[in-house]
Amino acid sequence: MKFIAEIDIMPLKALLDPQGKAVSQSMKNLHLPEISNVRIGKHISLEVEANSKQAAESKVDEACKKLLANQIMESYVFELVEQ
Amino acid sequence: MKFIAEIDIMPLKALLDPQGKAVSQSMKNLHLPEISNVRIGKHISLEVEANSKQAAESKVDEACKKLLANQIMESYVFELVEQ
Repeated sequence: MKFIAEIDIMPLKALLDPQGKAVSQSMKNLHLPEISNVRIGKHISLEVEANSKQAAESKVDEACKKLLANQIMESYVFELVEQ
Repeated sequence: MKFIAEIDIMPLKALLDPQGKAVSQSMKNLHLPEISNVRIGKHISLEVEANSKQAAESKVDEACKKLLANQIMESYVFELVEQ
């Protein structure tokens, strides 16, 4: 079975996010002062081939831990959809 | 009312995504050959203050068009949740 995983990787809440801070500031200059607390992370979509949803979940989790997310600075969540 | 917007900005399907290609290749080296077609984009979360969900949507859409997404190379989708 083929699954599509949609992964969000975000900087941890406790850490400063300088890119997000810069964008928050830019929003004011763009006459959008209603927008605040911008945080910027990564969105990754990928396909995974597995026998069950559970197996696919463990593969994606392994990929996140080994390569995609830096767990010291980032947290990740993902959703799997069968294709 | 305060809303939280979760925005996904991805490279257009028609375009090459060299970062995603490199990660797809790395998955093989990490003994995860089941994973393919990796595409990497941005995930942005922000707070927006507005009188209605519709007003908030138009603010976020404006922010995406003016600053967050490069519509020549990227597409964006977002979801709004009232806080």
